[in-house]
Amino acid sequence: MRVALLGGTGDIGEGLALRWARETDHEIVVGSRKAEKAADKAAEYEAELADRGLDREVAGLPNEAAAKGADLVVLSVPPQYAADTVEGIAEALAEDAILVSPAVGMTRDEDGFHYNPPPNADSVTEYVAEAAPDRVSVVGAFHNISANRLADLDEDLDADILVLGGEKDEDAKETVRDLTRAIPGLRPVDAGPLSNAHEVEGITPLLINIAMHNDDMSHVGVTFH
Amino acid sequence: MRVALLGGTGDIGEGLALRWARETDHEIVVGSRKAEKAADKAAEYEAELADRGLDREVAGLPNEAAAKGADLVVLSVPPQYAADTVEGIAEALAEDAILVSPAVGMTRDEDGFHYNPPPNADSVTEYVAEAAPDRVSVVGAFHNISANRLADLDEDLDADILVLGGEKDEDAKETVRDLTRAIPGLRPVDAGPLSNAHEVEGITPLLINIAMHNDDMSHVGVTFH
Repeated sequence: MRVALLGGTGDIGEGLALRWARETDHEIVVGSRKAEKAADKAAEYEAELADRGLDREVAGLPNEAAAKGADLVVLSVPPQYAADTVEGIAEALAEDAILVSPAVGMTRDEDGFHYNPPPNADSVTEYVAEAAPDRVSVVGAFHNISANRLADLDEDLDADILVLGGEKDEDAKETVRDLTRAIPGLRPVDAGPLSNAHEVEGITPLLINIAMHNDDMSHVGVTFH
Repeated sequence: MRVALLGGTGDIGEGLALRWARETDHEIVVGSRKAEKAADKAAEYEAELADRGLDREVAGLPNEAAAKGADLVVLSVPPQYAADTVEGIAEALAEDAILVSPAVGMTRDEDGFHYNPPPNADSVTEYVAEAAPDRVSVVGAFHNISANRLADLDEDLDADILVLGGEKDEDAKETVRDLTRAIPGLRPVDAGPLSNAHEVEGITPLLINIAMHNDDMSHVGVTFH
């Protein structure tokens, strides 16, 4: 499987690229708006994996080239660029590609972070689904995992990943669940259709607030049981 | 301490009444709109505790009488009655009473449950704070704990309780944290000021959706780590 991480030069994309490169045999492609940044980051990830004795190829390409032929594309971009990024790669996307949306809109004031969905949408995930071509499956996932913890390969993870998607995209959800299980310490939990994304995305600012207000908690994750 | 559970004849109020009666020496008063229902339920809780070898008095009174002289009042009422209930007990509330809001507004459609804050408010907790007299402290807590699990005294709990409240109400939050710690298996986590209640309350419909969509999960709780 070819997995493209758009915005894979930072945030959640960095951790997913490194972890999937280490834990799976999938082809890993890092995408960025800038070709040079993508290539630099891909080389950096290869070097980090080589340091750990892992001879692993990671490609770095501009977003559209990264998405071309990918079976699964993760949109690890700031929420305000999510729709534009989808439109920019729409033609390059394979017929049955899976588009994964992990982005969350937030604002910050003196009280802390607050959930802030895009204008005229209830969640970023639904906003991405609206912008995506009908032929692809849109799945929401990885909204609530700490980017710092994920990108630190020495860190043991213990978190649930809420996976969102409609019934018609059940196969795509299962692929995302499989990729989640491939990373030790992550467990996929089905959160139902995309219309539940509001409540899932809202957990992300809450996790930051919890880290701010509790001395012994940082880079907090969430589990359900 | 006198603890009043308004709407303590069901839902989260039942479990808190039973657990605090078992685990603490506090005076426990169950409140209801109807005197007879309150008295019946209080007698039922006493009988359940007696079955477990615990000789424990639980009072049952109409809401206003239950709230009178209480140090802490839990508003375990449906969200649409929360403001009316507060206004009905406002005069009876002690000078420095603590009002705890655990209610969550939800709607249900074919996709599942969705968070639905009151009209013109961002959360039920803030709606309650708006309706409460200035002299009392309003704390949000117990939004995300399963009422079924809490009311089943045979059930071992393992859940985090997000506690919300402003800086001026820090003492009240600490009292709520202490009462949370008094129940084995519950851990208080500070979620910051009341303006973060939207994201906290939104977890409740999500927990129901998770139970609906995952075969092995029911009466789900949440932990942060």
